[in-house]
Amino acid sequence: MADLKSTFLNVYSVLKKELLEDPAFEWSPDSRDWVERMLDYNVPGGKLNRGLSVIDSYKYLKEGKELTEDEIFLTSALGWCIEWLQAYFLVLDDIMDSSHTRRGQPCWFRLPKVGLIATNDGVLLRNHIPRILKNHFRDKAYYVDLLDLFNEVEFQTASGQMIDLITTLEGEKDLSKYTLSLHRRIVLYKTAYYSFYLPVACALLMAGENLDNHVDVKNILVEMGTYFQVQDDYLDCFGAPETIGKIGTDIEDFKCSWLVVKALEICNEEQKKLLHENYGKADPVNVAKVKALYHELNLQGVFADYESKSYEKLIASIEAHPSKAVQAVLKSFLAKIYKRQK
Amino acid sequence: MADLKSTFLNVYSVLKKELLEDPAFEWSPDSRDWVERMLDYNVPGGKLNRGLSVIDSYKYLKEGKELTEDEIFLTSALGWCIEWLQAYFLVLDDIMDSSHTRRGQPCWFRLPKVGLIATNDGVLLRNHIPRILKNHFRDKAYYVDLLDLFNEVEFQTASGQMIDLITTLEGEKDLSKYTLSLHRRIVLYKTAYYSFYLPVACALLMAGENLDNHVDVKNILVEMGTYFQVQDDYLDCFGAPETIGKIGTDIEDFKCSWLVVKALEICNEEQKKLLHENYGKADPVNVAKVKALYHELNLQGVFADYESKSYEKLIASIEAHPSKAVQAVLKSFLAKIYKRQK
Repeated sequence: MADLKSTFLNVYSVLKKELLEDPAFEWSPDSRDWVERMLDYNVPGGKLNRGLSVIDSYKYLKEGKELTEDEIFLTSALGWCIEWLQAYFLVLDDIMDSSHTRRGQPCWFRLPKVGLIATNDGVLLRNHIPRILKNHFRDKAYYVDLLDLFNEVEFQTASGQMIDLITTLEGEKDLSKYTLSLHRRIVLYKTAYYSFYLPVACALLMAGENLDNHVDVKNILVEMGTYFQVQDDYLDCFGAPETIGKIGTDIEDFKCSWLVVKALEICNEEQKKLLHENYGKADPVNVAKVKALYHELNLQGVFADYESKSYEKLIASIEAHPSKAVQAVLKSFLAKIYKRQK
Repeated sequence: MADLKSTFLNVYSVLKKELLEDPAFEWSPDSRDWVERMLDYNVPGGKLNRGLSVIDSYKYLKEGKELTEDEIFLTSALGWCIEWLQAYFLVLDDIMDSSHTRRGQPCWFRLPKVGLIATNDGVLLRNHIPRILKNHFRDKAYYVDLLDLFNEVEFQTASGQMIDLITTLEGEKDLSKYTLSLHRRIVLYKTAYYSFYLPVACALLMAGENLDNHVDVKNILVEMGTYFQVQDDYLDCFGAPETIGKIGTDIEDFKCSWLVVKALEICNEEQKKLLHENYGKADPVNVAKVKALYHELNLQGVFADYESKSYEKLIASIEAHPSKAVQAVLKSFLAKIYKRQK
């Protein structure tokens, strides 16, 4: 695994070098330095799970056959396209959310010489994806499907971001808008498509599959992505900060978290009043009241129930799939996230 | 012409309707309203020259044959893709430049409920382009070339924007960086590709041409785009405000204008000192000194000379082209801009 990661990082260097010599643009030393620094700062510093899972998934689809060097390079390149997509969204999200840190360092736009130039850097990150695809996949039969796939998933992610943004519009904090159905839509579009469906869809295309025949795979993966985000929301409040690596602030930030929508769904009028009065306030007293209510409503139990039901449902859907190789891909994803503590 | 414009605007309504019902996203009334308002505010309010010129160019390529209804719709759709691309860049540029107005109304991000959500709206505008292309061109032989074309031109535009931004980095006003070669690179990448080459390239693809065979057409068009931007820079200072519809502020804004790089090129040491001391300051006294120097250096004469030489060179390149239809396209572009006063 450590080996796979270092191979993956080598491919990053190759792709970066190509982008810094893209013949579609006349580079100067200044512009080349800028882009290189921007890429190194924003693209490779995460956990790389999404990118690595393209390689993993493709291996399962090849049913244990050793990947050729070419296949390793190409699956890695697709994996990096997803990491580039993620970097693009994170750079812009941090600007929109006025965030301060990302992956343990200041957000890119917070750097003194960067500022709002970060907006255009986000655009450049996005533009690198089709450059990478053109450099390495232009002659593949599935090239046009790859372009369509990335375009569709990016559209869905941006649309999910839109509903998230317009729901939490500054100055319009209205808890009554927060429902399970809205939560599901935000999570599905903003996260699940690009984090869960996209890596597997890339692997399927490389394996010569037609994505139109895999709508069931898509549905299972975005369901898994939704479950993953519910876990995230749960851990933000109930996870151990020393394990998840941060102190959750969803309550303070008035986030449309699974916990609050679930609480709103099962609480009585008095408890609802308490939520409306205390949710989304920075004062620890308000936060403590919300947390106490979460305990009173036994959200930990409700979550455990949701988790086991989701798992059963996902396993049943996976085992209904005709291909053992596809089952293996999906089960490997599920195994990585089921009952995770971080 | 008025008729062509109303046909073109009808196509906008059709495309908008399709986007507001895009099956790749579960719409709610709120999100549909948001996107519709955002589109109407940002996409159709400009002069629409870039979009309309796709239809015009295609007509020339068809050598006067009447366009079918289908051809009118498809050329209009491609024209709108360029207008969408323009809207995307303008929405983000206005944020980065802290602009106040655009096309006579407040910039989109200045609207009270919008703010930095405009960043994601820019992303949505960009994402609409491949949605439109997929809706109407997925079955065309040139579909993949269209995707590649839009991707390449967007990459070039963002790269041009990058060199513009990193050259005028806040707090690093350094006039000595402003050279004719830098000016040319900024203009070429930031404006000429998408404004001049892209419309004709779209028309060529629809006419069944392979763009690899039209590198000369690209070179002529981006040269024309460069000339167009030099005119723009000239008019910002020497144009009649009542004709160009605004009062130029390039001198105050420390813009890398053709006038200042030309002045730097031909001035003596004393004049250079004056430029360094007065360029990029808001005080009318400083601005007046710069303008006086421009007169002293006879930049109006230098520009007239540049203009006639550019024209001759462009005409010569155009007439060297083997196809009369392509010549007609290029000459129609040139005729629209030669010696323009606004």
